[in-house]
Amino acid sequence: MVQNDANDIGSMIDAANQEAHRRIVQGDPVLVDVQLAGDAFDGFGDRTLLHSGPPITYDRMCGPMKGAVAGALVFEGWAGDLAEAGELAASGEIAFQPNHHFNSVGPMTGVTTPSMAVWVVENRAFGNRAFCTLNEGMGNVMRFGGCDQEVVDRLHWLADTAGPAFGDAVRRRDGVPLKNIIARGLGMGDEMHMRNTASSSLFLREIAPTLAEGVTDNAELAGLFRFMVGNDMFFLNIGMAMAKSMIMAADGIDGSSVVTAMARNGTDFGIRLSSTGEAWFTAPAESAKGLHFPGFDESDDNPDIGDSCIVETVGLGGFAMAASPLVVGFVGAGLLSDAADFTRSMTDITIGPNPEWTIPTLDNMGLSTGIDVRKVVQTGVSPVINTAIVHREAGRGQVGAGVVRAPMACFEQALAAFAETLGVE
Amino acid sequence: MVQNDANDIGSMIDAANQEAHRRIVQGDPVLVDVQLAGDAFDGFGDRTLLHSGPPITYDRMCGPMKGAVAGALVFEGWAGDLAEAGELAASGEIAFQPNHHFNSVGPMTGVTTPSMAVWVVENRAFGNRAFCTLNEGMGNVMRFGGCDQEVVDRLHWLADTAGPAFGDAVRRRDGVPLKNIIARGLGMGDEMHMRNTASSSLFLREIAPTLAEGVTDNAELAGLFRFMVGNDMFFLNIGMAMAKSMIMAADGIDGSSVVTAMARNGTDFGIRLSSTGEAWFTAPAESAKGLHFPGFDESDDNPDIGDSCIVETVGLGGFAMAASPLVVGFVGAGLLSDAADFTRSMTDITIGPNPEWTIPTLDNMGLSTGIDVRKVVQTGVSPVINTAIVHREAGRGQVGAGVVRAPMACFEQALAAFAETLGVE
Repeated sequence: MVQNDANDIGSMIDAANQEAHRRIVQGDPVLVDVQLAGDAFDGFGDRTLLHSGPPITYDRMCGPMKGAVAGALVFEGWAGDLAEAGELAASGEIAFQPNHHFNSVGPMTGVTTPSMAVWVVENRAFGNRAFCTLNEGMGNVMRFGGCDQEVVDRLHWLADTAGPAFGDAVRRRDGVPLKNIIARGLGMGDEMHMRNTASSSLFLREIAPTLAEGVTDNAELAGLFRFMVGNDMFFLNIGMAMAKSMIMAADGIDGSSVVTAMARNGTDFGIRLSSTGEAWFTAPAESAKGLHFPGFDESDDNPDIGDSCIVETVGLGGFAMAASPLVVGFVGAGLLSDAADFTRSMTDITIGPNPEWTIPTLDNMGLSTGIDVRKVVQTGVSPVINTAIVHREAGRGQVGAGVVRAPMACFEQALAAFAETLGVE
Repeated sequence: MVQNDANDIGSMIDAANQEAHRRIVQGDPVLVDVQLAGDAFDGFGDRTLLHSGPPITYDRMCGPMKGAVAGALVFEGWAGDLAEAGELAASGEIAFQPNHHFNSVGPMTGVTTPSMAVWVVENRAFGNRAFCTLNEGMGNVMRFGGCDQEVVDRLHWLADTAGPAFGDAVRRRDGVPLKNIIARGLGMGDEMHMRNTASSSLFLREIAPTLAEGVTDNAELAGLFRFMVGNDMFFLNIGMAMAKSMIMAADGIDGSSVVTAMARNGTDFGIRLSSTGEAWFTAPAESAKGLHFPGFDESDDNPDIGDSCIVETVGLGGFAMAASPLVVGFVGAGLLSDAADFTRSMTDITIGPNPEWTIPTLDNMGLSTGIDVRKVVQTGVSPVINTAIVHREAGRGQVGAGVVRAPMACFEQALAAFAETLGVE
């Protein structure tokens, strides 16, 4: 009888997970707009600041996160300068919340405030929307903890000039379907986390004609193109909003043990499951193993940070390492054959392949999709994530890139909570 | 003594071939301009029409070549309509010459007349220039034998509108270096003959900002972008002019047995060597083996045609098949492992690798560069070429894509002529 019960429960979970997998791979993410976060998000309260990862209080935030927070408060005009911003942030007058609580995501520090521009991705198969800030380019940027005037000025340009222009072009295109850009990009060396060169290029192709029609000031138009083409990671934030729009369609399935969020705030790593509602299961964020830019080493590293590993929840990034021979060296992951091992090993902890997103160099193997918390704990194989590494002090920026594993403790906690929902603890 | 003589000659040839190889791989091809062929080419005579491949008389031309010739005569206004054009072409009043005789190349029929726009590539390492017409897009186009008003109108738009705009943008960029676009494209799935998606996208990134600055009519600018992004083969013609600019720097080296041109006119296949001057060594063009578009089969095929296999002389195209998992299926070349065999086998007939153009999926193997006519004859391994297949009748267009081998008879003749230059026949 106990055995039968267990079989029944196992079958129920399998069915729930198949449904989660179906919803993920059948998503139809379309980039539909650029809006200000304050207009786009439901219930974005006054004096609220969103950050990457699971919930965290200001005092526990890491250096680059505090830097980004200060810069964002200046950007919003809530503080007159960085010193005042630091005081305000610590005062308790600012409400800090995760991006994920607003169906949004942000790379690295992920700081999002109401006056920032965000990409809007609509999952037309399921009717939901997800968001992500616009990529700021490389160098001195808020996602890496930058907070000086250059960073603030660029955010204003993104909100006032670039965002409206991109939004207008996207709307007049009636949206840009994203699934095919990913499919093509996987055949052109992108894994969509640490390499977005092909997808950024393909997106430029999608948007260049309508952008040229909409922006009649040619110097401004040229500036927009220079901004896009000067940044191989331009597409990352679009891909993140896309991934969020796809995985959130798999939320709320009773009995599903599929992971529907992974995110880090630079202090904690957190995950959420389809069937456990808004609970976060957290553990200390680990440090990535990888390669450092000249002049930096592991002693400079902040622990793992950012919402960008949302792409791994839909099979991209570290899961798709083998699609990207050129990222393998960049993140210090060894040889291409090692990359194939990373990719193949993710089949052990996922529900099934994505038939539309395949890896040409692996006989068109479909990307492993739908992380099953049961399989992670049973196999001891943790999801692999490609990531940038940021300096632990604010304002120092990116110091390298590498590979990190999601902490096993998150999955153990999640599995316990999952069992509770089934009454089989 | 005979043995010593042979050794001496062998060493001399090896040294000459190393010099040829050095010149090819050290080329610095930069796209510098778009001009009208009549302005760009030295000694482009009146009533002269250039075609792909080795020299051929009008009566021996294949169907699509005759179609393209007729269309070009109407385009130039030398004939009032296609019927008149056919009579004029057969009358002996038109001088037909190969593109190669003007340091130019053209895909498929390759027909080039003085009023057509051509890309200008300057090899800054060696001071020479090479040319190629602008890609017309897919469908009803002159390179596939199209000759109606739509084709003629597009050629006028390329000469009067697109060409000047691209030329202006390229000049204000002070030229677009091409070597790095190829290096990046090889890591993004292009082999630069039958797949140019990545390189076309990377070129758009190079030129979009200056194009936006130069074209103040936004509808015209949008039209230029739509033309570029609607054609994954946009870069092919630039890559062909680039390859010609690189390989021609290896012309005229006494004692070199390196192949400096391969070209087909749809009737004959011809090659030239570094040390045998302007002589062509020809044999009947063969038919490609590959895949047909729905509704067509081998009975529709014209024999192999076009100057595009100039890219194989510098290690691209069929030689780089393994760089392009997605082209393998398109040309019917089997599995990716078969593609790697094609690529590896080309090392047997070439002087050496190109250290700057490498294949990530083959442990960064450098492209096999500098076809040695001696090695081709000795090994019996003929250069492999990726190619489009055109219908044997004018105006029917492309019917498929495939792989073809350069005819061994060309290499046997060339080797005999080469031996003659050394006095060792």
